Amino acid sequence: LTPPEQPLTYASTGVDLEARQGVVARYKEIAKRATGPQVIGGIGPFAGMFALEGPYRDPVLVATTDTVGTKGKVAQLAGRFDGLGRDIVNHCINDAFTTGARPLFFLDTIVSGDLGDDAKLALVSGVADACAEAGVVLLGGETADMPGTYVPGGFDLIGFILGIVERDRIIDGSRIEAGDVLLALPSNGLHTNGFSLARPALGIGAGPSEDDRPRLERYEEDLGETLADALLRPHRCYLPDLKPAVESGLLKGMAHITGGGLGENIPRILPPGLGARIQTGALEPPPIFAFIQGSGLIDEAEMYRVFNMGFGMVFAVSPGDVEAVRALVPEAVRCGEVVSGGGVTLVDPAGPNPR
Amino acid sequence: LTPPEQPLTYASTGVDLEARQGVVARYKEIAKRATGPQVIGGIGPFAGMFALEGPYRDPVLVATTDTVGTKGKVAQLAGRFDGLGRDIVNHCINDAFTTGARPLFFLDTIVSGDLGDDAKLALVSGVADACAEAGVVLLGGETADMPGTYVPGGFDLIGFILGIVERDRIIDGSRIEAGDVLLALPSNGLHTNGFSLARPALGIGAGPSEDDRPRLERYEEDLGETLADALLRPHRCYLPDLKPAVESGLLKGMAHITGGGLGENIPRILPPGLGARIQTGALEPPPIFAFIQGSGLIDEAEMYRVFNMGFGMVFAVSPGDVEAVRALVPEAVRCGEVVSGGGVTLVDPAGPNPR
Repeated sequence: LTPPEQPLTYASTGVDLEARQGVVARYKEIAKRATGPQVIGGIGPFAGMFALEGPYRDPVLVATTDTVGTKGKVAQLAGRFDGLGRDIVNHCINDAFTTGARPLFFLDTIVSGDLGDDAKLALVSGVADACAEAGVVLLGGETADMPGTYVPGGFDLIGFILGIVERDRIIDGSRIEAGDVLLALPSNGLHTNGFSLARPALGIGAGPSEDDRPRLERYEEDLGETLADALLRPHRCYLPDLKPAVESGLLKGMAHITGGGLGENIPRILPPGLGARIQTGALEPPPIFAFIQGSGLIDEAEMYRVFNMGFGMVFAVSPGDVEAVRALVPEAVRCGEVVSGGGVTLVDPAGPNPR
Repeated sequence: LTPPEQPLTYASTGVDLEARQGVVARYKEIAKRATGPQVIGGIGPFAGMFALEGPYRDPVLVATTDTVGTKGKVAQLAGRFDGLGRDIVNHCINDAFTTGARPLFFLDTIVSGDLGDDAKLALVSGVADACAEAGVVLLGGETADMPGTYVPGGFDLIGFILGIVERDRIIDGSRIEAGDVLLALPSNGLHTNGFSLARPALGIGAGPSEDDRPRLERYEEDLGETLADALLRPHRCYLPDLKPAVESGLLKGMAHITGGGLGENIPRILPPGLGARIQTGALEPPPIFAFIQGSGLIDEAEMYRVFNMGFGMVFAVSPGDVEAVRALVPEAVRCGEVVSGGGVTLVDPAGPNPR
């Protein structure tokens, strides 16, 4: 081992603790947008504290974690980081909310090699705004600077959410039976899944990096907007629209359509021995899906295996409750039914491969 | 854009959903090592559920998140992944426990480009074992496969912990006053911090990668073990040793000595206008610190700014309670006192730079 020519310092290795303190102070300022009287001691020194105001009869805590994954790569190439905070918060809210839980607080972690302070602050800013909009407290976060682990510009944004639900109000699919009706709310695009297929299909990030931004920012006739706008549209939060239906107690199961599409996510809420028939034509996929499919020559079945294809949230109700639920969620469309057997059968009433 | 020669599939882009399903099933099997009767519905479809058994009078939820960071790089170069799960679980437990909270459950996220299934399973296995040992439930997790974001072999392991404490039992440092005594428990090495300085100091990961493993696995006289053993020793969990003292109500503040060392972490628990004097000689730093310092020609002050230097957890007690606390925590050593003013003054009773 050759000794270094100069004494080593942490700053010389790319980790500047003092600079980092400055950014942390700004994180704390941003986090104040999404705080509340339940928070004790602000962003705590080693952990956040949240008073569990009640009373609760038989409370169940609900927790989940996810990441923006390679949607971050597109954001990096486009130089737009503000939507990703909303992506991860809304993704986590939707996941926790499938149990009927009210989300209480959120924590984020940014992992990166060389991501700049402005990008990090934009990420945290989006997180705080999405939390504030949903009435969720931003209780803490972490930034891990990892020289030598990421490709230049590489990063991920990870979220954790904590919610609470009374045990007798848990929505877990166990009461679903054959003949129940499936309703759906539309997605607004890819949400936070399928980017590892979308990117190569669109040729983004494949060639010289200076080609990516003009391509992402060019107006596309077929989309009616730029690729960046279509791809980076933030994951929709279903909490406000579905809350009245959840509180009604009429929803028997809720599936958030994420990675693996309808075929993988709907069975996660179905009791053994049950499957689903879905009329894929019930919701018009946003045009970005046909654009990706055409660019990548992707098989229709593969599209449905990977992407949400316009389905954001699918929920099961008894046939007799359909009208009551639709009155509470006017945007909901009937998209199928629960059937005996297993698996998810996709039926397109407009005929095979109409797109 | 040139169309692809073959129709694209998700598998051809490096994300194989079916293979991933197989790994997820094995994660769920491993997670059973750290489950409990509070868990409802196993590893849930979209979120984990944990019954909050009480009764609690005025419960406060405590949450924090952290990552193994570039300790993962050393693990990758050594081909040893099993200790990292223990690192992140224990790091998070210690952070949450500084508030006096009992940790209830943990979730993990693995982010990587090309990390193999065996490595991922070793990570989750270490997480589950550490959770089981501490009586913490492993409630869920996520794996994000991100082609094109990481350098080959690059990854991170992120943890999230949720604990609970009665409001009137919170330990937050607010009762600390000048003249209080600081006690410490030793660290067993770097724990999970300072690897971005340790690696360049030791020349690990700097040259051809085939040089790293022999260097990490060579017996070092000065260490009495290999570099890999010294660097990868898992972060110590202070819960079992400190629990009786926490329950006694005699601890006024607890600082987990992580990134930023004594100088940054002790002030986090001190009320305004107070500082600390620390006798650094109170604890003998494990030999890995002198080894890093010598290899990197690192200034003594910088060593204390970056590393824990043998201090794992520092806690404040009233002078009259010192003996009672030491009876509950026999390993604790007196290492300093709280003083008027601010900042952390490091005093070495054995003289300057004795090492």
